[in-house]
Amino acid sequence: MSDHQPEKNDTESALKRQLRTIIFGTDTPAGKYFDIALMVCIVMSVALVFIDTVEVFHRDYGHIIRILEWVFTIIFTIEYAARIYCATQPLLYARSFYGVVDLLSVLPSYLALFLPGANFTLVIRILRLFRIFRVLKLLRYLSEGNLLLRAMLQSSRKVFLFFFSVSLIIMVLSAVMYVVEGPENGFSSIPKSVYWTIVTITTVGYGDITPKTELGQAIAAFTMLLGYSIIAIPTGILSAEISQEVGRHRDLRECNQCHKMGHDLEAAFCSRCGCELDRLEPPKPKS
Amino acid sequence: MSDHQPEKNDTESALKRQLRTIIFGTDTPAGKYFDIALMVCIVMSVALVFIDTVEVFHRDYGHIIRILEWVFTIIFTIEYAARIYCATQPLLYARSFYGVVDLLSVLPSYLALFLPGANFTLVIRILRLFRIFRVLKLLRYLSEGNLLLRAMLQSSRKVFLFFFSVSLIIMVLSAVMYVVEGPENGFSSIPKSVYWTIVTITTVGYGDITPKTELGQAIAAFTMLLGYSIIAIPTGILSAEISQEVGRHRDLRECNQCHKMGHDLEAAFCSRCGCELDRLEPPKPKS
Amino acid sequence: MSDHQPEKNDTESALKRQLRTIIFGTDTPAGKYFDIALMVCIVMSVALVFIDTVEVFHRDYGHIIRILEWVFTIIFTIEYAARIYCATQPLLYARSFYGVVDLLSVLPSYLALFLPGANFTLVIRILRLFRIFRVLKLLRYLSEGNLLLRAMLQSSRKVFLFFFSVSLIIMVLSAVMYVVEGPENGFSSIPKSVYWTIVTITTVGYGDITPKTELGQAIAAFTMLLGYSIIAIPTGILSAEISQEVGRHRDLRECNQCHKMGHDLEAAFCSRCGCELDRLEPPKPKS
Amino acid sequence: MSDHQPEKNDTESALKRQLRTIIFGTDTPAGKYFDIALMVCIVMSVALVFIDTVEVFHRDYGHIIRILEWVFTIIFTIEYAARIYCATQPLLYARSFYGVVDLLSVLPSYLALFLPGANFTLVIRILRLFRIFRVLKLLRYLSEGNLLLRAMLQSSRKVFLFFFSVSLIIMVLSAVMYVVEGPENGFSSIPKSVYWTIVTITTVGYGDITPKTELGQAIAAFTMLLGYSIIAIPTGILSAEISQEVGRHRDLRECNQCHKMGHDLEAAFCSRCGCELDRLEPPKPKS
Repeated sequence: MSDHQPEKNDTESALKRQLRTIIFGTDTPAGKYFDIALMVCIVMSVALVFIDTVEVFHRDYGHIIRILEWVFTIIFTIEYAARIYCATQPLLYARSFYGVVDLLSVLPSYLALFLPGANFTLVIRILRLFRIFRVLKLLRYLSEGNLLLRAMLQSSRKVFLFFFSVSLIIMVLSAVMYVVEGPENGFSSIPKSVYWTIVTITTVGYGDITPKTELGQAIAAFTMLLGYSIIAIPTGILSAEISQEVGRHRDLRECNQCHKMGHDLEAAFCSRCGCELDRLEPPKPKS
Repeated sequence: MSDHQPEKNDTESALKRQLRTIIFGTDTPAGKYFDIALMVCIVMSVALVFIDTVEVFHRDYGHIIRILEWVFTIIFTIEYAARIYCATQPLLYARSFYGVVDLLSVLPSYLALFLPGANFTLVIRILRLFRIFRVLKLLRYLSEGNLLLRAMLQSSRKVFLFFFSVSLIIMVLSAVMYVVEGPENGFSSIPKSVYWTIVTITTVGYGDITPKTELGQAIAAFTMLLGYSIIAIPTGILSAEISQEVGRHRDLRECNQCHKMGHDLEAAFCSRCGCELDRLEPPKPKS
Repeated sequence: MSDHQPEKNDTESALKRQLRTIIFGTDTPAGKYFDIALMVCIVMSVALVFIDTVEVFHRDYGHIIRILEWVFTIIFTIEYAARIYCATQPLLYARSFYGVVDLLSVLPSYLALFLPGANFTLVIRILRLFRIFRVLKLLRYLSEGNLLLRAMLQSSRKVFLFFFSVSLIIMVLSAVMYVVEGPENGFSSIPKSVYWTIVTITTVGYGDITPKTELGQAIAAFTMLLGYSIIAIPTGILSAEISQEVGRHRDLRECNQCHKMGHDLEAAFCSRCGCELDRLEPPKPKS
Repeated sequence: MSDHQPEKNDTESALKRQLRTIIFGTDTPAGKYFDIALMVCIVMSVALVFIDTVEVFHRDYGHIIRILEWVFTIIFTIEYAARIYCATQPLLYARSFYGVVDLLSVLPSYLALFLPGANFTLVIRILRLFRIFRVLKLLRYLSEGNLLLRAMLQSSRKVFLFFFSVSLIIMVLSAVMYVVEGPENGFSSIPKSVYWTIVTITTVGYGDITPKTELGQAIAAFTMLLGYSIIAIPTGILSAEISQEVGRHRDLRECNQCHKMGHDLEAAFCSRCGCELDRLEPPKPKS
């Protein structure tokens, strides 16, 4: 990012540069402590939201919870201001995914001043959790994360094909059950019947709507067996894909000396001639 | 199809030929727009059927829904007539799978004129959804679809063996539970008991019928653990089969220059000598 | 079997020999028709048992069902007598697994004469279904059946280790839930609590017993997540094992001409030099 | 352990040495019989705890159960004393995992003398079950156990990443459902809503809390489909990992004569030249 304006970087204040290292960086000790402190704040502020919805706590500790909520809001506001201040390109940051999430972390409390009882702000507050991903962003550079991502990207077309077929089956089964069981047995409309079919085919089985007629129970039994069997398909696709991914990594490792291929991912020396192997660079995920 | 009557093709009207390109073809822009428009009509007409079963919508917007239903019926009727008209072999088309599905898309509305309140026509209307598959028929040519199909065909005998054994177990367990629990605890007959066993072994667990006696609960617990374990078998079979399928594709790729085998499916150049690889033709599924 | 008494075989009546070919054999057309007829009888007689437990059918068609039951009993009795008569070693047959199952097919009806209302004979009648396996015994010789069997045998130690650990976890969780929830919330004893834990950990979830206290619900949530995760373990073990089994078969196939290895199981010709491959003998399962 | 004080070992009483062989050892017949006897005692004492919680048994056989409980407590006390006496380093044993479990096996009964009705001692008594692992400790040395352990260690980072993501999704979904359904439909607080989300996403589906509104049911359906799909991910990871583990073992086996690699784990002779292979040492799990 900063490659484009090297001169500006040189002339900007030392404070700005230091702040940026602490807030956006993760390599320095200060950057690490900042990240950890931020994570603790996020987890605690979300825990507050959770606790506040419990009747007993809301009644007895409501005012303490409200004070703490404001403390965290102020912390997050200062943090957001600091980020805007020290970002090399403030507008780019503000419009980025994390920029929006950061803003959403502070907005709900201020909104609540003008819109008392706005229950939906609750969900926005929970979204703060996604900020944890920034702190753990490093995970993306682990070959594990990469591999999983690649396997999922590779199998996405197969999985989409699978879910499309399952959706058609669900709709046809729902229409059949609506006709067979009818509103008098709880299948009051096809959308409700779709809900029942999904509850059944995913083997959740609440039991709030159950077939009462013999034919309905037979179709239900068929639906269950179907759901039970087809669960194997995405699992099979994904596990084969991950297996290939791991195998592909191994197959590409070649000894420079004896040209033996297929070394383990964690191997550092050739298993045949003992000469050192190149360090394995994690392959980049396809964008 | 058209190979058998080249003369007739030359003499048939230009309109007929153009219509055919639009309706049956997918390569020209007009053909693509037609397919997309058709898909939108199918999805909307099915959505209408769904919405009409909801009490509130049926009462308030019933007449609008009925008018729209007729609009779609007329569109589909015209489309069906056009297909019959421009097909090279109208009879062959009319008797094909998609020909029957196309006819079923328009029949229910006309039937409803003579048989008012025929609820089962609802299911026939939902079957229109299968027409989407024609539009997406191209998916079949993707190597992914092929691979999945091959893996499923290859494992079908193993999976059949598995389901046959599971059926026997279900029947014996049902008889045992009928004897142990009896009609007074909801196991009113063996077919009902089979329904319970399937609900339990697939881990759906509605809870509409549950064992009450100690022995019954012990057998139920055994049934659950059984269902929980054997789910591993079809998953294992299929994922091994897909894995083999993918591996087989790779193993067959050989470099023409240095004869190194086992190239990635998406590789375009040999990883050893760098010379270009043959493009991979997706193998045809066994019929 | 007949290798030990060749003289006796030569002198025994032609009828006996012919009967044996029909009843025990599966290669001749007569043997095949006999097997199919037997299978139809088995399936129909079991269907009768099922239908008889349905209140409505029992009341209206009870006497017809009883007559048909006797018809099948007499057929199976004649068949059993014929098997005993024509077996080369009648005693060995009578004590074999299938000999016992055959006897159990006919006994219940006769027992019912002396012990009216003996409900448990119902289960014995269902056991007739296992006779279908004899007719389909050939399946065992398919490489698919073999492969599945081998994979299951190979992974049995790992799967046992898994189930042993799961059992310990279930017992400890049951004791904890019994203490936390107590008899007033439906956890009336540890055995009942074990039943609940199994219902939960296998993700069946009847809902006949559910945790009411906050702590109980937290432990229940943990139990569910545990059950949801560990289902991956046996699936992973088995699918890896099947994958290895398939791979092992392939790896052992070597071309006699050019010594290329790793041919597909269904390949008949070497993919490199085109010379014919040995036919693959299915390896025998380890006893 | 005994390597550090060879002189002490020579001078210590023969009884002590013999006792140690029996109690800690598993190689001698006496050691094996001791282990089996211990296992029977553990299983029976735990069965007693289970039975005692059943109302009927507690009322009718309460006094016998109490006597037997004391018999087992005395046996375990003697065993614990013997272990302390004959251990080469008594303190080290007493502070080890198994030393603490052994102590916990005897404590509850003595505690119950001073704290009558202490229900939680029940759970401690169940913990005795973990002593069975010592008896079966040998399992750890089986290559199966090792392989499973390695596969789980290898995939732990991927599985952690998965569960972290799932946790975030669960929390956001819980907040959404709390807002949508609200306390009047059973979603009385976010923690309760988290309980519902876990019940649903793991496909347990008790049905004690179910969505009543249309929007709630739609979100619930989405949650189920999500849970149904993502179960594929840990399964895929683990099964790929186990597959690699098994493959790695095989790939490392090389014939000393003809240098052919990739022999089966159970192979004793090279499949090409027939010369004997080195016995396979199970690789040690990474600590």
